[in-house]
Amino acid sequence: RRSHTTVSYTDPQVSMDLLRAVLQPSFNDDIMAVFKKYQKFFEKGAENVKENMGDDVQTDQLIREACRNALEHAKQMFPEGEGKRAGPEVTMKRSRPSDEDCG
Amino acid sequence: RRSHTTVSYTDPQVSMDLLRAVLQPSFNDDIMAVFKKYQKFFEKGAENVKENMGDDVQTDQLIREACRNALEHAKQMFPEGEGKRAGPEVTMKRSRPSDEDCG
Repeated sequence: RRSHTTVSYTDPQVSMDLLRAVLQPSFNDDIMAVFKKYQKFFEKGAENVKENMGDDVQTDQLIREACRNALEHAKQMFPEGEGKRAGPEVTMKRSRPSDEDCG
Repeated sequence: RRSHTTVSYTDPQVSMDLLRAVLQPSFNDDIMAVFKKYQKFFEKGAENVKENMGDDVQTDQLIREACRNALEHAKQMFPEGEGKRAGPEVTMKRSRPSDEDCG
């Protein structure tokens, strides 16, 4: 019996995501280099929070969450549905909640 | 002692997110500079997809989606730990060795 786990190479999104996956490790390195620039700010901020709120604050988690949120908000530079459409002019501007924690 | 108030200023996550928001514009610039490195790959890929699939493929949207996906996957460098809220029931246990991820 054959399994149905084949990748759909006819799906534009899937094709692009394969490319994205190939580039991801290198991209991650570059992103991490960027974060190093901001690390001291996040560390300082997390330490301040810990000072103000008490020792049960986990600074490592706060910093990681801030990093994830920064990445989430950076997505707004690449908004969905604002491209040139080939067909009749349709504006499908979807705003996604970016405050959500996509962990 | 932490008081159990719902005022947002006492929320560690909110405090950190204020800091994140301040840094975001500069961070975005750096992220965009990183993407410029990969832009040609995404463009080439999107053009290939368009060639293979037809003219109704919107390369701009494909590229932006790839960028968003790259950012989404970059979050995995900053994994969520357990006990993400600093509340009374929080335990300090941590099952994943991810402390050094943000630095």
